[in-house]
Amino acid sequence: MKIRPATDADRDAIWNIFREIVAAGDTYALDPAISREDALAYWFAPPTHTYVAEIDRGSVGEADSFPGMASSSPTANPNHLTVGTYIVRPNQPGGGSHVANAAFMMTTSARGQGIGRAMAEHCLSEAHRLGFRAMQFNYVISTNIAAIRLWQDLGFEIVGTLPDAFRHPDKGFVDVYVMYRSLIDK
Amino acid sequence: MKIRPATDADRDAIWNIFREIVAAGDTYALDPAISREDALAYWFAPPTHTYVAEIDRGSVGEADSFPGMASSSPTANPNHLTVGTYIVRPNQPGGGSHVANAAFMMTTSARGQGIGRAMAEHCLSEAHRLGFRAMQFNYVISTNIAAIRLWQDLGFEIVGTLPDAFRHPDKGFVDVYVMYRSLIDK
Repeated sequence: MKIRPATDADRDAIWNIFREIVAAGDTYALDPAISREDALAYWFAPPTHTYVAEIDRGSVGEADSFPGMASSSPTANPNHLTVGTYIVRPNQPGGGSHVANAAFMMTTSARGQGIGRAMAEHCLSEAHRLGFRAMQFNYVISTNIAAIRLWQDLGFEIVGTLPDAFRHPDKGFVDVYVMYRSLIDK
Repeated sequence: MKIRPATDADRDAIWNIFREIVAAGDTYALDPAISREDALAYWFAPPTHTYVAEIDRGSVGEADSFPGMASSSPTANPNHLTVGTYIVRPNQPGGGSHVANAAFMMTTSARGQGIGRAMAEHCLSEAHRLGFRAMQFNYVISTNIAAIRLWQDLGFEIVGTLPDAFRHPDKGFVDVYVMYRSLIDK
């Protein structure tokens, strides 16, 4: 697997992943009907840094190990499959710009292989390299157990709880967490 | 004092207040050098609801009771002075859109007269009317004591603390609070 800065050639692959995640509607507070244009504008909005995770097509054996991916997530390099994408950016402008925010999306069919953790570690490293002093997630939905466990394992703490702040498509109103970790002396 | 929805005729007055608040740099994480265009785009961005608070020019006796305001904050009605502005909007799209976010700005020279509280109460009423179930402030700087006291007095609780998340122009890195209150059964 390789994680690298995204280019314009990755836009189709990113949109495919974005669309899949947003349509599921259980991990992000985003309009499930968001347009491709709005989604990519959000994901690439300056001063956002955008990355993709890709794997060798050969490493998955048959393309149908990841159903639909061979066609649904074309990449700039036909030997690669784009399996995830993340962004890192200042969480606030001005006096809050030393704190990074990040967001991650991974195609469902590639889960359970450590790709999420690899992207998270890459992101922390990039945020540190870019000079951020801390990282904050503003909106971690409390039912997203896998993500919360990963962030806690990587040193994030729940620093705030927003009661009933997300309307889950199956579970109704659920809490949302704010998570935070320092990047100083990392 | 009157609080009412803002119109295009209020843009100059809003920009004057916005510029004053952002230049001080101690209450908002916004670029102090933000342009008029970007500031007004932010303050009026759909689906934001924007309001202004204005007072009778006569009620302040001499115009110089509020130094600079007679010229710096012209309003659509020359008998009025615009002393504050606030916005209310969904804090998140999609599954988070039932929670309101709000932001307030008031010209320094009009403080201590209950205008902030009147705007806050108006805002809570409007958010309730618009169907929001809760209101969240994402970024209340811990040194902004007057604001914190007002929100607590109006039923908000500190539900999260972001360590050192704001670089204060005089005090260095200071904590930031996330504040929240329900609007159900209000």
